[in-house]
Formats: sequence, structure tokens, C-alpha cells
Amino acid sequence: MNIKDKIYFENYIFENINVREKLLEFLKEDIPLGVDYSSFFLDKNIKAVILLKEPSFLCGLPFIKVLFEEILNVKVKSLYKEGSYIEKVPANVIILEGKASKILKGERLALNILQRLSGIANLTRKFVEKIRKVSKKTYLLDTRKTTPGFRLLEKYASLVGGAKNHRLSLSDGVMIKDNHIKIFGSVSKAIKEIKKHIPITLKLEVEVENKAQIDEIIENNLQDEVDILMLDNFSVEKLKEIIPYVKKHFPKTYIEVSGGVNLDTIEEIAKLEPDFISTSKTILQAKAVDYSLEILD
Amino acid sequence: MNIKDKIYFENYIFENINVREKLLEFLKEDIPLGVDYSSFFLDKNIKAVILLKEPSFLCGLPFIKVLFEEILNVKVKSLYKEGSYIEKVPANVIILEGKASKILKGERLALNILQRLSGIANLTRKFVEKIRKVSKKTYLLDTRKTTPGFRLLEKYASLVGGAKNHRLSLSDGVMIKDNHIKIFGSVSKAIKEIKKHIPITLKLEVEVENKAQIDEIIENNLQDEVDILMLDNFSVEKLKEIIPYVKKHFPKTYIEVSGGVNLDTIEEIAKLEPDFISTSKTILQAKAVDYSLEILD
Amino acid sequence: MNIKDKIYFENYIFENINVREKLLEFLKEDIPLGVDYSSFFLDKNIKAVILLKEPSFLCGLPFIKVLFEEILNVKVKSLYKEGSYIEKVPANVIILEGKASKILKGERLALNILQRLSGIANLTRKFVEKIRKVSKKTYLLDTRKTTPGFRLLEKYASLVGGAKNHRLSLSDGVMIKDNHIKIFGSVSKAIKEIKKHIPITLKLEVEVENKAQIDEIIENNLQDEVDILMLDNFSVEKLKEIIPYVKKHFPKTYIEVSGGVNLDTIEEIAKLEPDFISTSKTILQAKAVDYSLEILD
Amino acid sequence: MNIKDKIYFENYIFENINVREKLLEFLKEDIPLGVDYSSFFLDKNIKAVILLKEPSFLCGLPFIKVLFEEILNVKVKSLYKEGSYIEKVPANVIILEGKASKILKGERLALNILQRLSGIANLTRKFVEKIRKVSKKTYLLDTRKTTPGFRLLEKYASLVGGAKNHRLSLSDGVMIKDNHIKIFGSVSKAIKEIKKHIPITLKLEVEVENKAQIDEIIENNLQDEVDILMLDNFSVEKLKEIIPYVKKHFPKTYIEVSGGVNLDTIEEIAKLEPDFISTSKTILQAKAVDYSLEILD
Amino acid sequence: MNIKDKIYFENYIFENINVREKLLEFLKEDIPLGVDYSSFFLDKNIKAVILLKEPSFLCGLPFIKVLFEEILNVKVKSLYKEGSYIEKVPANVIILEGKASKILKGERLALNILQRLSGIANLTRKFVEKIRKVSKKTYLLDTRKTTPGFRLLEKYASLVGGAKNHRLSLSDGVMIKDNHIKIFGSVSKAIKEIKKHIPITLKLEVEVENKAQIDEIIENNLQDEVDILMLDNFSVEKLKEIIPYVKKHFPKTYIEVSGGVNLDTIEEIAKLEPDFISTSKTILQAKAVDYSLEILD
Amino acid sequence: MNIKDKIYFENYIFENINVREKLLEFLKEDIPLGVDYSSFFLDKNIKAVILLKEPSFLCGLPFIKVLFEEILNVKVKSLYKEGSYIEKVPANVIILEGKASKILKGERLALNILQRLSGIANLTRKFVEKIRKVSKKTYLLDTRKTTPGFRLLEKYASLVGGAKNHRLSLSDGVMIKDNHIKIFGSVSKAIKEIKKHIPITLKLEVEVENKAQIDEIIENNLQDEVDILMLDNFSVEKLKEIIPYVKKHFPKTYIEVSGGVNLDTIEEIAKLEPDFISTSKTILQAKAVDYSLEILD
Repeated sequence: MNIKDKIYFENYIFENINVREKLLEFLKEDIPLGVDYSSFFLDKNIKAVILLKEPSFLCGLPFIKVLFEEILNVKVKSLYKEGSYIEKVPANVIILEGKASKILKGERLALNILQRLSGIANLTRKFVEKIRKVSKKTYLLDTRKTTPGFRLLEKYASLVGGAKNHRLSLSDGVMIKDNHIKIFGSVSKAIKEIKKHIPITLKLEVEVENKAQIDEIIENNLQDEVDILMLDNFSVEKLKEIIPYVKKHFPKTYIEVSGGVNLDTIEEIAKLEPDFISTSKTILQAKAVDYSLEILD
Repeated sequence: MNIKDKIYFENYIFENINVREKLLEFLKEDIPLGVDYSSFFLDKNIKAVILLKEPSFLCGLPFIKVLFEEILNVKVKSLYKEGSYIEKVPANVIILEGKASKILKGERLALNILQRLSGIANLTRKFVEKIRKVSKKTYLLDTRKTTPGFRLLEKYASLVGGAKNHRLSLSDGVMIKDNHIKIFGSVSKAIKEIKKHIPITLKLEVEVENKAQIDEIIENNLQDEVDILMLDNFSVEKLKEIIPYVKKHFPKTYIEVSGGVNLDTIEEIAKLEPDFISTSKTILQAKAVDYSLEILD
Repeated sequence: MNIKDKIYFENYIFENINVREKLLEFLKEDIPLGVDYSSFFLDKNIKAVILLKEPSFLCGLPFIKVLFEEILNVKVKSLYKEGSYIEKVPANVIILEGKASKILKGERLALNILQRLSGIANLTRKFVEKIRKVSKKTYLLDTRKTTPGFRLLEKYASLVGGAKNHRLSLSDGVMIKDNHIKIFGSVSKAIKEIKKHIPITLKLEVEVENKAQIDEIIENNLQDEVDILMLDNFSVEKLKEIIPYVKKHFPKTYIEVSGGVNLDTIEEIAKLEPDFISTSKTILQAKAVDYSLEILD
Repeated sequence: MNIKDKIYFENYIFENINVREKLLEFLKEDIPLGVDYSSFFLDKNIKAVILLKEPSFLCGLPFIKVLFEEILNVKVKSLYKEGSYIEKVPANVIILEGKASKILKGERLALNILQRLSGIANLTRKFVEKIRKVSKKTYLLDTRKTTPGFRLLEKYASLVGGAKNHRLSLSDGVMIKDNHIKIFGSVSKAIKEIKKHIPITLKLEVEVENKAQIDEIIENNLQDEVDILMLDNFSVEKLKEIIPYVKKHFPKTYIEVSGGVNLDTIEEIAKLEPDFISTSKTILQAKAVDYSLEILD
Repeated sequence: MNIKDKIYFENYIFENINVREKLLEFLKEDIPLGVDYSSFFLDKNIKAVILLKEPSFLCGLPFIKVLFEEILNVKVKSLYKEGSYIEKVPANVIILEGKASKILKGERLALNILQRLSGIANLTRKFVEKIRKVSKKTYLLDTRKTTPGFRLLEKYASLVGGAKNHRLSLSDGVMIKDNHIKIFGSVSKAIKEIKKHIPITLKLEVEVENKAQIDEIIENNLQDEVDILMLDNFSVEKLKEIIPYVKKHFPKTYIEVSGGVNLDTIEEIAKLEPDFISTSKTILQAKAVDYSLEILD
Repeated sequence: MNIKDKIYFENYIFENINVREKLLEFLKEDIPLGVDYSSFFLDKNIKAVILLKEPSFLCGLPFIKVLFEEILNVKVKSLYKEGSYIEKVPANVIILEGKASKILKGERLALNILQRLSGIANLTRKFVEKIRKVSKKTYLLDTRKTTPGFRLLEKYASLVGGAKNHRLSLSDGVMIKDNHIKIFGSVSKAIKEIKKHIPITLKLEVEVENKAQIDEIIENNLQDEVDILMLDNFSVEKLKEIIPYVKKHFPKTYIEVSGGVNLDTIEEIAKLEPDFISTSKTILQAKAVDYSLEILD
């Protein structure tokens, strides 16, 4: 990750949420009454270090900076750049300097953020590397299966790990899924009806589960209405046949593959070069990375 | 879990957080602009079902009820009680009835809550069962290593799984940890100083890492000041020696074992019958359970 | 406007903003201390009527309902449907029944909403009718030139008047305007750079001011990246030449005409059948409609 | 307008509303998700200018300063003083310097404020000048017929245009209007009853529609209870007779004329030298002034 | 106090503050984490009584009703009307019926409100009775010397005790006090300058400390600008001379006496029949009344 | 009070509440519309002094600093340290320097805080001194009988006066009181049941009213469950007998005496050396101290 990317990621997340407010809310969860009785009277200045204890990508630094510098008035010096891979551990990654009471107040929250975001970045990177081995064109996407209240941080970690974000929320894109199709009776009816109601500036994505639905779209001559076509839960075998078929009949449409994507299957899927492969696993199955905070003498 | 427990769990969580407000905040994360363009105009009433797709404890029902009944005006009928173990899957677990637009608006959030809370309940139950095999007296505790903004729901799942909650936050209990000891110079100095500043109604817990620290407390005759003694990162071998030693010298003090607790070691530790065994793993390593929502014809 | 439309409009606006909260905020502006000293003690029930005093479309009813029924506990009976044109005036349009103190508390706000929204609906309708005379295919759009804090109500009135909404906010669509082009150096550079950063589910609209910019897009083979092309400030004469040219070279792109649109020119422009004609005039130049509230004996 | 006035206007509005919060709320309306995808990554510093494109008074500068300097961290240099009349156009009025992303984020809101406030100042000035031709004693007042949520800015523009503000809200003054009179049965009953309930520090204004009501007040000897008497909807002919009559019988009471006030009639009314003439037209019929923002090379 | 008064008082306070929100804020102060661990699981329904343990006026009932009925879902039956004097004690005054957990949650707050408001009503009544012995025309006023955050409840108790409220806040009336006079150089300069800036609907009150200031007002012919003249810290002897003097020279001005007012001097002052006598003592020196809450068997 | 104490007190209160927000809320109560019409235009800088007019401890300074320095941009120079006793009066205690408009805006709130907190510190000190005459071991505690919304400031004054704080709220400690005992049927049943539900880190306090309840605890062998035993409303005579009895049977339990504590009885009670004596009188019966603010020439 180069510096330009860093600016991109940080601006992106910092514009999307009021990071300061979010962190204050998280801090309030951990210290609702404000006082930590074992440290509130510790006015002396100390140094402390955040240690990484297993090999990992570093992810979460911009949040640690706002937490300690803007909210707790503690100086933060990072020894690595956001997104670095640190192999040799234990490694000092962040140096803190400020009032003992403030450093201890932020300790648990800082670690809880780092451990989770780094875990997501690690797993995402594994998926992305599998894709890159066979394709330069296909991108990995995440999903809306995230921890409530923590989504934007998880999606940020997904970016740092090398994926692109799918919808951040229901509000930035229109998607017709299985349940919509059921309600309208058929995929073509759903497309026609929903198309009437959406803003002129949002794209329409349609999720299909079988070739019959794809053919129905073609028969109704609705290919151009579908900005993105998501092939959901097709086997790799099926995909080998379907993707070329879709590329032929939907020349202007992006193709997204979803469902049944894992570290074993993703390379095979990527070889078929859909535009996107999406999976919830990079977030749902991420393993917390071991960090700790230690007071320096 | 019997009905009395159910009241206990629900009251507990519903008094601790404003569940309605929390869910509104989660919903706003998923639909910041309010409109889901593919469903907002769907005024017709429908029925839908939440399906469980792998064997699991059911955990999260009270949140689903508030989300759909109080916020989205959708009727909720649960076919199982909170905390039930459902073996035969796929299983219909919750029936929803209301406007299509409202059911689709809550779908993702409902599933994101159920998948995470049920996963925590499942893993917690495994740890608890290991303890119960060898001891009736020792309780499992969780920790403050949780997802920021989502802690109380995770701690609730921990309760449903059979654990007790350790501190919900820094505000309900005073704990002297390794970093405090470093700042004060020694465990006995930390106890003496912190004791001066804490409210008369909060207990004091002290974390020690070796026998020397325990002996220092004894030499300074501070045993009675320590309401809970946490033995952190002692090997099982060490614990076999230390626990009887502490029981003898701290007759009024609860003993908590922490660090290195996992499904392989917990039984051995439980045999030593400390009052509590605490672990972050039940929450950090929980595996999301597969649920889906389907519109009924 | 038929009933289906009514559901559509109301759902749309009521999902997009928390109407109740917005109205409470407006009410607080008018009664910051809560008490209206000339009416707060008037507990008796009365009837009142809202009168329309000049021919107009009725617009604003759903807000009047929430204001009086949900916030002020006053019964509302409307004698006309939202969007009706009322020619014969003065006309009783809404009957209110409730405590005198509550009716008087909501009086000014209710009238301020009706007078403005009806004015926008009236002027919008005039523009739409001019278009309809010559084209069934071209739609009228509004703009983001609105009164701060009141935009969504103004955009709602625009819908009732027969227009479609352009972007409600910067967040629902990506638009490259003159200033972006200046910053990037050229329209093609702007398209290439911005394309990298936008979510996969949002469309891209590009504003051009002359044929050279259009040709630059064609030369760089970026036509398919442009989901909507806005022709800004072209004379009607120029448009006659340019629109067919664009239709030919951008077969998949919507065409929007903007700038210099008024009641004199719109018919000529509509004859060229661009997909959209957008103007800020329907909102900025709308004339407040005369309504009053009278207590009935 | 001299400098002293400037301090007066700014202090007045800045104490009455939390300008910063209000602008943040307006900004959120325009960018609810925070990100403007076509500019968020533009970190480079640029210069831009706000241009006035038709002759106008400049009104809204203090808001532009808070918006760009305090909220968006953009330097603002105004080339004219608030309230200046600028005849020669197009004229550069405000120079901005800062990050491109921030300038573009505030562009639409800044223009929306300037265009509306300047329009109100312009029209208000026309009414005030008509009065000044014939009287030095009579003041123009505005009304509560304003855009919900935007009133204090409109009232501020009214001040800049040379009017005085009537009530900012129901909370700063007590007014008996036609509907109150109807509820109490007569103007004298309304005065007697309401007088009992109002704070000792607020004045009482009474609206009358005919001479009979004025005589009723005199007969009940309530002249001294009426701090301000508003003559509503009297013809100019009627006013010629009534104003001297009121001046004689209500020696301590301010006289306000309202209803039917327009640019044709106001001079005639002002010749009669009531203390105040009030009209909603200066705000309701104000014409948006054309401003634009351009990036400088 | 008759029923009409009751409506008056309740409407007055309930319009002035959002009582529900205020009580929720108070409750949060007493139970910030939401859970009362000794009662949260007590789901059974019980009856309880609020006992008055010393003779007192009952004051605070409307707040108790909102607290228990609207917030805590507990039925409230009052055995006395708000404002009643209860001589025979201990007396059951309010019966509560609902969940034990909810009654215990509101107990302390309910008692804290009753004990303070009743104390203020009691002391206010003593001052009022002293006045009533000698004058029917003079009213008692309270001041802005109140407990921060609790003012409107204290002012409400003052009303129930028989006083009138002076300004609820700086926002409802304009007052020139000693410090303003110092800043402007003299009382007449202060009046002239401030008069320019105040809304046309607010009265002007002027505080004077000696006859010289009164004469200065007369010499500058500013009597009619002074809606209320406050004589501050004049001795009773001085007042005997000054009040008739002011009545003569300020025929339209209300007279308020303040400073040095206590239960010993108030009767003498009231004999001079100023319009108002104001004192902070009724609130500052009120004695808390003894109430308790008991569970019934 | 030495400097270390000062840090302790200030940190304590400033961590427990968001002092800035609380003061803004108080200020809003006093100036809801923001404008003080008699001072808002006073831009010139002045000096003012806060005078203490009767001998008193100084209490409230940290709040005055935040109010004037952080919120109103006025420099504060205190001539005495928080907690000083000032005998010679009138005494200048605090010098203010800033805009006249800002100083006058904060005047009333500053004085209302100082007068109340100093009064509580004074009375608390009297109780504490009585205890200190006879015991070095017994501490004075306050209670939850405080003014709603103002508790933490009152508890802070209590600390400055030399007491320790009992529970700040229901959330920091578990207490079994008379009403809980009634609900459970007996004190031992209450202890057993409540013990099951409380967090492992909170202490349990039990209130008893007679020796029978104490014996019941002993008979059920629950002494060790009771962290604090509160003897409520025992006569001094009874206490002489009971305290040694409790010390003997509850060797690990703190003893608190409550009820009937006043300046006449407290010395006798302190001689018996319970751990704590608690009273609501130091807050409920505190007398406001006379302070004023004067503009300096």
C-alpha cells in the first residue's frame, strides 16, 4: 500500500463516519460512568507501547490516533505504516506518551479495535492473493454481513486487506434479491416495477439463482436495465458455463459471483474472470490478532 | 434454561441498555437515508420465516422482537424459546407477519444479530460443559475483549450460554492489573494507594502473575483488601500448587484463573475449583451461525 | 394523481426523513420556550378550518396530518386529496378538531408548510404541462438549489407537481461538474480518476458545456463510463444539433439538459426529447399560496 | 450600514442560534453519508471565488465564514462588507482558499444561503426606502410567515435589509389575534383573561379588524393594557381616519399596521406615521439572487 | 387552589419544559447504568404508598404522575389534590401499583422531588400570607437564584405556594441591573442604549439603588420607557418615602421592591402596596419536607 | 486541603460528569433563546470580581473556571484555592476579565453554583469536625437525597467539606433496604436471592432496623455475604449496645450508622467508632452562601 492509498482509505472512512463521535460512543460503552477508579488520579506522564504478538498486517492505526490524540490527549507515534505486514514478533508497533490515567482509559478499546481489524485484513489478503494468482481483472467484494454498529470499521479493514467494498448500506445502491423476486412473482416483474421507483443516479443489481432467471431477463429484453448481475450459489461447474453465456448476452453488465466462495474454490472462480467475487467470510471468519499494551519503565 | 432465567436475562439486558435506541442506531447504520429503494413501496402484508440452517442454541430472540414488533410494526412468533438447542435443521424458528417493506428493512440486521449471538452461546456452552463435568462450584466468566459498540449483546449471549459476566465496563468494579502495578512500583503499593480512592461499595480485584506478588500481599497483610485475586497466565502445573496456597492465605477472597484457558485445559483447571475461570475465547472465537430469512408464499 | 401514487409519495418522503422529528424541530423554532402565553390555558375543544384563498394544487397534507394528529393530538379531516387542484375559492380544505391551545400552537407552522409546498407544486405543474404537450418521454427534474433545512419537503412538492427528483443529496449519485473538470485539467482525466474511487453501485453523471468536451470523451472512448450526460447552458439552437449527436455516440447514456430552462424555452427543448430537463426555477421562483386558519363557531 | 451595526447584527443572530450547529445540520442534509465521491480524495489546496452575477446587496457573509472557516477549514476573504450594495457585475465577492475537497463540499450550501438571504435583503430595502421617503419615525417589521427551519436566517436578512424584527417566535411577546378573540367571545374578554396568565415582563399586542373592536377596548377602559395595537387589513382610506383616533385614545400604545401592505400602498400608509408597518412579502416574495462558485486556475 | 388553577399550573409547567425528558434525565442521574441490582428481577406486582411525615402543602404531584405512569408504567392514585395542606400526619398521600422493580426504581427520585417542592411551597405560602394580611394588590415574586438544572420545578413550587413568577430566564424580559448601569456610565445612558436593541414585544425593567438614579430617569424624561422599576435594597423607612414618589412620577410603571425582604419585614413593605415584592428566600431557604415510600403488604 | 487532594477532587468530578456539557445545559436553562437583550451587544472588555460576603469555605471554583474560560472565553484568576476558608469578608475571591456580554451571561449561573456548593461544604465541615474531635477512624458519608440533576456537584461539595461519598447512584453498589426486605419476606431471604443476581465485583450493603434482623443474618450464617451493614434509625443508647455486638459477629463487615444523625448526636455516635456515619442533612439543610459579581471600574 503506497501513500496515495493511505490518503484514500483514511479520507474515505473519515468522511463516511464521524470517527471521533463513534470512538466516544465506544469509550462510553467501556466507561459509562467516566471514572476508572484504579487510574483516574494518576496524573503523571508515562510512556507505553502497543505490542503485536503474532505475524499480521497492521490495521486500525487511524482510529488509534484519533482515540489517543484527539480524545485522550496522548501522543501517538507509529513505528509502522497502516497496512504493513509485520513478520518478526513480538514487535513494538505504536509508542504512546501521556498521562497514565488517559493511556489506561483507552487501552482496552484500542486493543479491541486493532485485534479485530487486523484479523479482517489478514483473512481478506489471503482471498485477494488467491485471486491475483490467476486474474488481474477480478475484484474481491465484502458484504453487509457485519457486526451491527461496527460495520464501517470492518469494511475499512476489508479495504486495507485489498478488497473493494460492496454496498456500505441499503442506501447506496439498489439490489433485487431472492425475496424481492418472490414478492413480485418473477425476476422480470421485479425489475420492471422497481425500475420505476429508483433515483436516476443509482445502479440496479439483480441476484439470480439459476439459468432460467437469466433467460427470463433476456426474453423480456431487460439486459440493459441490469447494471450488475449477481450469480448466487452457482457451483464452480455451473459458473464455467454460465459466465461466458452472461458475458455474451449482457455486454454492458458487470458480473458478480457470490455464495460458496472459500479459500478452496476462489481460485477456480477467479479463473473465469467475473468482475467481482463477493464473500462474507473475510469478515465473519476473521481471527482476532493478539496485541497488548505495556507501560514502559 | 427455565422461564425464571428467561425473565432474568431479559430484564438484565433490557435494563442495562436502551435496546430500542441501540437497534435504531444499528438500523441507521444499515439504512442511513431511510429508504430501501427496492422495497419501500411494498405496502402489502406478507409472511416470512427465519430459518436456522445448522444445529445451534437459539440466541438473540428478545432483540428480534423489539426490532420487528416495536420498531418495524411486524408481528413476531417464535417457535422456540430463547436458549433452546435446535438439532434438526433446517428449522423454521421465527415467523414474521407484516408489511413486506418493513420485513425486508429489518432482514439483514436481524440475521446479523442472530448469527453472532448464537455463535457465542454455542461456544460458551462448550466451555461450561467441560467445567460442569468436574465441578459444580466453579463459574465461567467472560472478559472485556469484545466488539466495540456491541459488547452488551455479546455479554448477553455469554449469559445465555451459561457463563456469568465479569465486569460489563470499567465502571462496575475496580481492578488492579499488570500496568497499574508497574506504575505504582509493586502490587502492595498499588493496593494501598488505589484503596484510598475507590467508592466504599465497589470490590477490589487484583491480578497477579507469580507467587512473589502473592507473597508480597501476604507480607503486607493486605489479604483482606483483596476481594478477588486473579491468577493470570499460570500454567496448570503451577495452579495445582498455587490455588491451595491462596485458599489457605486468603480465606475470604474469591479466586479467578485467567490466561491460557482453552477447551483442552479448562477441565484440568476446573478440577482445582477456583471460584471463576475467565476467558475471552468464547466471544472472540465464536463462529457465526447460518440463519436466513425467507418470504412464505 | 391516483391512490397508488399517493402511497408512493408518502412512503418515499416518510422513509427519507423522520417527518415527526423534523416537524418537532420546526415547531421548536416557532415556540422555543414551549408556551404560547395567549393560548396555553385554553383547554376547551374547538373546531377550526384551513381555508385555501386562491386556486391551487393542494400540497403538504401528510405533514399537516403528522403535525396535528401525532404531535398535537388534534383530529384532521381533509376534504380533498393531496395533489388535487382546487379552483373554486375560498375553499375549506382541512377540518381540525381538538384543544384550542393545540390548534393555535400548530397554526403558523401548518400554514407556512402549505403555502410553500403548494406554490412549488403549482409552478412545477406548469413546466411539466409544457413538456407533456410535445413529449411523453422527457421528464422534468429538480436540482439541489433549495432552502437549507427544508429540501426534502421542497423535493416532495416537486414530485407532487409531476417532476422526478434529481439527487436528493451529494450522497446518492456521483456527478462531475465544471469545477471538478477544472481541478483535474480535463473532462476525460476527471472521468478516469473519479471512476477509480466510486462505489460499484452508483452511477456517474458528467456535466459538459461544449461540444469539444463531448468529443474528448468520445476520443478517449469513455462513453460507456458516462451513465448520464448533462448538457449545461447550451442554447436551444445548439441543442438541436448536439442532442442527436450525443444520442448517436452515447447509445447507453441518458441525456439531461440544464441551464436556461424557463417557461418560454422548455417546449422547444422538450421537442428534442432529451431524457431529462432540469431546472431550479420550479422551487426558487415558486409563489407562496394564500391559506388561513379560522376557528369555527 | 456602519461597523457598529455589523457587530449588532452578527451578535444578535449568533446569540440567537447556534450557527455552527445549524450549518452542520444543513450540511448533513446535503451530504448525509458524509462522502462526496467526486471530490473526497482531492487533498490539494486550491483557490476559488464566489461570484455575484446580478446587482444586489450582499447578505449572508457571517454564515459563509462559519461554514468554511470553522467547519470546513477553508480560509475566507471577503472583498465587500456584509450589507454592501454591489452594482457592477459579475463581481468577485468572496475568495476561498483550502483543500479542494472541502471547498466543493460547502459549495452548494454556501450558494443556497447567499442567494436567498441577498434576495430578502434586496426586497426589504425597497420597502424601507419607500417608507424613508415620507417618514423618519415609522419602522418596517417582518412576520412569522417564514420557511420552517430557516426563519432566523430570513429574519437576519430582514435586519440587513433595514427592517426591524417582529416576534422571532411565539415565545417573545404575547399577541391576541382574530382566533383568540373568537374563542373568548370578544376582544375585551380576551384581553382581560390573557392578561392574568402572562409573565410580568412580556408586552401584550392586540390585533383588531374594525373600529368597533377599538371602541370596545376604550369602553372597557383597557387601553393601558394594550402595549401594541395592530390594525389588520384596514384600507388606506380607513387608516387615515383610524390612526389619529387611536393615537388620541391610546397615548401610550404603539400602533402597527398590517395587511394589504405592498410596494404600491406602503408610502401612503407611512405618511400616516404609525409606529410600525409589518409585511410578510419581503420574505415570501423575495427573488433568489444569482451567485456561483468558480475554481481559480 | 381550585381546579381551574390546577389546570393553569400544570399546563404552564408542562408547556415550558418537556417534563418527560427532564425526568428521564433525572432518572439517568440516579441509575446511569439502568440496572438496580437489588430489584431488577422483581417482576411481581405490588402496592406501595408515599407517606407525608410532617404537616405540609403537597407539591410535585404532576411530576410523580409522569414519572410513574408514563415512564415506569406504575399506576398512581393521589389521595389529595396538588396544593392541598395536610395537617394530620403521617398521612398516606399517594398510592402506587405496579411492578416492584419499577416502583423501587422511581422511589428516590420521586421523594427527592416531593421533599424539595413541598418545602418551597410551604415557605412561599408563609410570605404570601404575610402580604395578604395587609394588601390585596401586592404580589410576591421569586427570582433567578435557583438550583441549576432544577429551576422550572422550583418556580412551579413557587406558583403553587401562591407567588407569581418573575423571569423564568434571561430570555423573557429585559432587565437593567447595577452592572449594566456601571458599564454604560449611568442609568439614563443604559436605558437609552438598551432600548435601541430590544425586541418591540419585551418590557424593560430597571433596577435602581437610590433616589438619585430615580431622579436621573425623571430628568431625562425616560419614565415611560421603564415598564417596571425595581427598588433594590432600600430600607423600609426609605421605601415609605420613595414608593409614593415613584407612583407620582411614573404613573404607568409597575413598582417592584427587592432586597432585605424577609418574614419580619415583608408585612411593613406590603403595607406600602408596591405592585411586586421579590425575594430569593422562598426558594433558597426552603426546608425539605419528610416523605417516605413504603411497600404495602 | 493540599494540592494532591485538589487533583483528586477535580479529576474525580471531571471524570464522573461531562462538566462542560452540564454547564451548557445549565446555561441554556438560564438563557434558552441565547440572547440577553441587555448585554449581547456589549463587545468591550471589562474586569469584574466575584465577592464573598460572609465567612465561608470556597467551593465550586473548578466549575467557574470551565464556565468562564472554556464556554464564555473569559479569563479567570482565583485569589484563593478551592477549599480555602475565608474569614475576613467581603473578600474578592475571583477576578474575571473578558467581554462584558460574556461575563454578564455567566453571572447568575456562577453565583448560583458557588452559593450552593459553598453552603454544603460549610455544613459538611461542621459535621466532620464533630467526628474528628472523638475519632480518627470514623468517616462521614452523604446520601442520595439530593437535588435532581445537580447531584454530582452536591456530592463534590460534600467531598470538599471533608466527607466521603456514599453511592453516587444506584449503579455503583448494591443495597438491600427496608422495602426489599418487605418484598422478599425477610432480610435473610433478601440476601440469598439478591446475591444470586449481582455482579461479582459489587459489594452488598444491608440496612437493618433492629437486633432481630441482625440475629437472623447470623442464624442463617450470612455474615460474610454482608460487605456493609447499615444500622438505620437506632437510638444512641441502642447503638452503644449494638455496635460492639456487630463488630464481634461480623468481623469482616463495615458498619454504617444512619438516621437521627444531627449536630447534637453525631459526637456520641462517633465515639462508638462505626466505620461510617451517613446523613442527608449536610446537603438538604445547607444554607446558601452570599456571593455577588461586580464590574470593576
